[in-house]
Amino acid sequence: MAIVGGSGYAGGEFLRLALFHPHLEVTQVTSRRFAGEPVHFVHPNLRGRTNLKFIPPERLEPADILVLALPHGVFAKEYERYRPLGKVVLDLSADFRLKNPDLYRRYYGEHPRPDLLGSFVYALPELYREALRGADQMAGAGCNATATLLGLYPLFKAGLLQPKPVFVTLLISTSAAGAEPSPASHHPERAGSLRVYKPTGHRHTAEVVENLPGRPEVHLTAIATDRVRGILMTAQAFLHDGWSERDVWQAYREAYGGEPFVRIVKQKKGIHRYPDPRFVQGTNYADIGFELEEDTGRLVVMVAIDNLVKGTAGHALQALNLRMGWPETLGLEFPGLHP
Amino acid sequence: MAIVGGSGYAGGEFLRLALFHPHLEVTQVTSRRFAGEPVHFVHPNLRGRTNLKFIPPERLEPADILVLALPHGVFAKEYERYRPLGKVVLDLSADFRLKNPDLYRRYYGEHPRPDLLGSFVYALPELYREALRGADQMAGAGCNATATLLGLYPLFKAGLLQPKPVFVTLLISTSAAGAEPSPASHHPERAGSLRVYKPTGHRHTAEVVENLPGRPEVHLTAIATDRVRGILMTAQAFLHDGWSERDVWQAYREAYGGEPFVRIVKQKKGIHRYPDPRFVQGTNYADIGFELEEDTGRLVVMVAIDNLVKGTAGHALQALNLRMGWPETLGLEFPGLHP
Amino acid sequence: MAIVGGSGYAGGEFLRLALFHPHLEVTQVTSRRFAGEPVHFVHPNLRGRTNLKFIPPERLEPADILVLALPHGVFAKEYERYRPLGKVVLDLSADFRLKNPDLYRRYYGEHPRPDLLGSFVYALPELYREALRGADQMAGAGCNATATLLGLYPLFKAGLLQPKPVFVTLLISTSAAGAEPSPASHHPERAGSLRVYKPTGHRHTAEVVENLPGRPEVHLTAIATDRVRGILMTAQAFLHDGWSERDVWQAYREAYGGEPFVRIVKQKKGIHRYPDPRFVQGTNYADIGFELEEDTGRLVVMVAIDNLVKGTAGHALQALNLRMGWPETLGLEFPGLHP
Amino acid sequence: MAIVGGSGYAGGEFLRLALFHPHLEVTQVTSRRFAGEPVHFVHPNLRGRTNLKFIPPERLEPADILVLALPHGVFAKEYERYRPLGKVVLDLSADFRLKNPDLYRRYYGEHPRPDLLGSFVYALPELYREALRGADQMAGAGCNATATLLGLYPLFKAGLLQPKPVFVTLLISTSAAGAEPSPASHHPERAGSLRVYKPTGHRHTAEVVENLPGRPEVHLTAIATDRVRGILMTAQAFLHDGWSERDVWQAYREAYGGEPFVRIVKQKKGIHRYPDPRFVQGTNYADIGFELEEDTGRLVVMVAIDNLVKGTAGHALQALNLRMGWPETLGLEFPGLHP
Repeated sequence: MAIVGGSGYAGGEFLRLALFHPHLEVTQVTSRRFAGEPVHFVHPNLRGRTNLKFIPPERLEPADILVLALPHGVFAKEYERYRPLGKVVLDLSADFRLKNPDLYRRYYGEHPRPDLLGSFVYALPELYREALRGADQMAGAGCNATATLLGLYPLFKAGLLQPKPVFVTLLISTSAAGAEPSPASHHPERAGSLRVYKPTGHRHTAEVVENLPGRPEVHLTAIATDRVRGILMTAQAFLHDGWSERDVWQAYREAYGGEPFVRIVKQKKGIHRYPDPRFVQGTNYADIGFELEEDTGRLVVMVAIDNLVKGTAGHALQALNLRMGWPETLGLEFPGLHP
Repeated sequence: MAIVGGSGYAGGEFLRLALFHPHLEVTQVTSRRFAGEPVHFVHPNLRGRTNLKFIPPERLEPADILVLALPHGVFAKEYERYRPLGKVVLDLSADFRLKNPDLYRRYYGEHPRPDLLGSFVYALPELYREALRGADQMAGAGCNATATLLGLYPLFKAGLLQPKPVFVTLLISTSAAGAEPSPASHHPERAGSLRVYKPTGHRHTAEVVENLPGRPEVHLTAIATDRVRGILMTAQAFLHDGWSERDVWQAYREAYGGEPFVRIVKQKKGIHRYPDPRFVQGTNYADIGFELEEDTGRLVVMVAIDNLVKGTAGHALQALNLRMGWPETLGLEFPGLHP
Repeated sequence: MAIVGGSGYAGGEFLRLALFHPHLEVTQVTSRRFAGEPVHFVHPNLRGRTNLKFIPPERLEPADILVLALPHGVFAKEYERYRPLGKVVLDLSADFRLKNPDLYRRYYGEHPRPDLLGSFVYALPELYREALRGADQMAGAGCNATATLLGLYPLFKAGLLQPKPVFVTLLISTSAAGAEPSPASHHPERAGSLRVYKPTGHRHTAEVVENLPGRPEVHLTAIATDRVRGILMTAQAFLHDGWSERDVWQAYREAYGGEPFVRIVKQKKGIHRYPDPRFVQGTNYADIGFELEEDTGRLVVMVAIDNLVKGTAGHALQALNLRMGWPETLGLEFPGLHP
Repeated sequence: MAIVGGSGYAGGEFLRLALFHPHLEVTQVTSRRFAGEPVHFVHPNLRGRTNLKFIPPERLEPADILVLALPHGVFAKEYERYRPLGKVVLDLSADFRLKNPDLYRRYYGEHPRPDLLGSFVYALPELYREALRGADQMAGAGCNATATLLGLYPLFKAGLLQPKPVFVTLLISTSAAGAEPSPASHHPERAGSLRVYKPTGHRHTAEVVENLPGRPEVHLTAIATDRVRGILMTAQAFLHDGWSERDVWQAYREAYGGEPFVRIVKQKKGIHRYPDPRFVQGTNYADIGFELEEDTGRLVVMVAIDNLVKGTAGHALQALNLRMGWPETLGLEFPGLHP
């Protein structure tokens, strides 16, 4: 397999996972800037684990599986060049996540190839497992959309929520902004900050709305902590009268009872009562919790994921495992660290 | 003046401010556990700045000003003992913040002296400046209530918001849980965590509701980051049709035009566009920002404060300055650090 | 296999590694305080990965392999009770690391069973690989000793260093102090601190001196950062006249040429030029670097490890793999994360 | 007064201090990049505290006091241009710190104006108080040199140390590398790292050696933590036979007995036993501690400072206070925060 754009954080994370996957052999990793350097020059964790060097994208040769981790917009523009280079294509950018061209236009501008929207399967196994098994074109979900969808999908599917706006607050991390230095990412400015990144208008809203039953009104606010990895999503919604905590449990169990990477975290005692992104760091888990305020019907949903694993490279590899007919959890076994 | 409970974080912060206040002389600081130790044994920043030692509470003698920083419930129970010891009494606990005994009961249980509820002035100068000038009994506001009230009060007062629930997300800090070690505060467990602390039922809801015009429906969710100090409040509300960003500006200007410690932070460019608790650390500022989503009328309000200064000891000292007829900003000049 | 003291950080880390080891089956984990609770109550990363519950130590039954992670001193006192419960015994405490009773006495006090000193093999594979293959009693090395020994051993063995004191500065982490809360580990006190923990007299000095050829004079100073995991060791020594950087390279290559978990990290460019504990977090790697000041002969050696993996549970599992005749790297493959 | 280079961290910190100094009025602050922007655009802590805007350096007009915070080398090259613009000149760069041109050449290269070396007074009040009172040209000390000199000077002056190499380990912060973004300072790469920055050859060695009696052999190793501010220096030395802890106390008392900003921190109990850069953050304090290993005579000295205050702008302002005949502590009163 080949990875296009392997010096960024998404591509680098897919590379890490693929190097330890028993059925994958990474033979090419591209990077324009670091062409010629060993991959561990950029990703120091991979030192001693591979002799791969970055190649310039021009030298890319056909591969059975092509994973694209390019900046948003590049693949869509160069689809004709890249598509033939992989039998199976897995794109980690936002280019082909959406089906609706109007939604795309609103959040990203005009799409260069609107005819192709809809030809990729959204690579979130919990929502599209069956479709992924036969997919030759897969589009990885956005990290914030992943957290939001995993938390809300079962509730909308089960019809538990009142038709009111749902408010989602996303606590995100600095790796979400990518590997490119900028004044905003300069450590002395960034460390210790809680920076409201997108109070309104977050692009992942489009994916969330498109993949929830009934296209509900969902409002996203993204705040960047100074964690390097991780997302904590909290959502505020109201249950229909008459529904109780038991029904919420039931909705999650029905949706995720057999899911290998979804855990319900809701304890009455102890210090780890709710999902915490720290304890899923490096893993493909989505930890989901909730609390119901009995007298008002207000439901608070919490989801913790690692934005680069379950939020990006992990669910993409999980989808690839499905596509290839391999055990779904292959290469995704790391359980995370404590403390 | 005397400080009761000076080894905790609220009392220690008031002590720090008072030691550098030109008109205050701290003559007594109590601590049962550290009686006999110099105050710098607990507060290492005060080394070399004072020779004060902690005394046991039993040795407390009358003072012109008595600041109480005891665990919630203690002062209410021992009101008869402590009240005569100070001509002016400033309580930093939750005991006398509320006026309504039902609200108190709902969030804290039965009040030992419901007859006294209402006899203290709520020590938030931006809301109760005139009342504070003549107050002999003042009750400091809760830190999360301070952030929430400062952000929402002008909007409710100006009648800008639709009568819908307002959702408030509070990113809080580990100092908020106090100076007492516990398994939950053990550093290896706590560092790097984003811990949902109170998804529903936060006690400060009572203060927020009681002090906003019309007792609106406000829902609080508190999430603890691993910052030591600071609060970032974000609130989600909807403007009435027809109101615009200009009206929001106007509401804040009317409410806070002359306020020495409120700054509106809303920049179109640069890396410091919105309030960030990091840059008000150690200061008495409340930085307020907002963003309006034009097509939906959704208003996101942001407030950053230092929970121990503007959220606790700082607004209390500001209130005391008012009470004593001193310049309101005295002892509260520190501008914070960058980077 | 069974783990005694599985709710602490060392025992918990061994548990994590063992659960994912293809030839190990953990059947018992003891904890007095958490007996009856599922192991994920304490170690949230293990949720969904095992149904094991803690049992009280009294219920411990014989096992093929017994890993002891008790507080220092307990195993030595209860040797008669625990020893028969495991065919192979692997102790992670300091009780049987030393051979010399005088050294033990100086740093730990009187040993309850001095007759047994010397009957355990020091479980550092890089130094004692052959002895470990036949060992039924193994004593895990101290985390700081591991970092120091791995950095200095090849230099002393090759006779490169002048007979002058070697100064070792250890930057350590908060997990090193264990899972027990204390005023010193209270998050608001500990976060952001650089706390000199042991300027002189560090206990691991004994292990370092005992395992280096010629018992050289080595001085340790330990400073605790607020990282949760990781050690960065720097050592200051002088090369004999006439030796050059090339000879240092040669010494490390000879000692570690075939080592699966030692990497020499010394790059002339880039941002990851030297060992950094961040990039070995969760892994069994010891990254070693050095720099020679040509005109003075001063050699600075740097070693980065994860104190709980390569510093404790990881080298212990590596030793166990050797003892059992399994591939040495089994269960220790995780490469760490970037970013 | 005027500040040249006010958008950097050193210049910005001097600006913050000067704005709150009762006898200083800042009338000009230059920045080429941010000319025309209010100073709070770069330094968000100064919002609402001043209406100053950056001006381009070309527009600089004469001032009574000129503080230069330019990149190393610029002032030396443009001395003829800048010198006449200030009656009193205070340079925060390394250009005129040294007296010996050979030392300068070794660490910085050829000096453009070697004739001027020696014409500036080294602005460390603890070492050169009397000379500073009459100085029209002052050169601020390097931050690491400040910490090292303050820790070692009294020991060398009192003749306590054996003539052996002294090893200094400096734990430094990310603000030390300045305000310019780079791949090395990109937050996701930098956060959580312990990066050995200068194992050998640190430039501040020159200042340390030049200002210690007898030009001793002192070796510096600098390691960057991910703190934003602060330095923790530890030094390893040996006392002459016969000297004891009491003599070390005596040496520090003699040197610093009357110093307003030096505190000896050495407690037998409690959690704040030694100097910690966290608790001097934002302050002009240098906290000094030590520990003696009785049987070997090894002395470990510890110094904690804020690199931007006591390490740069703070000691410079203290020197300026001396020069102007003002109370030495003016504008430097902030005591730091706890917790």
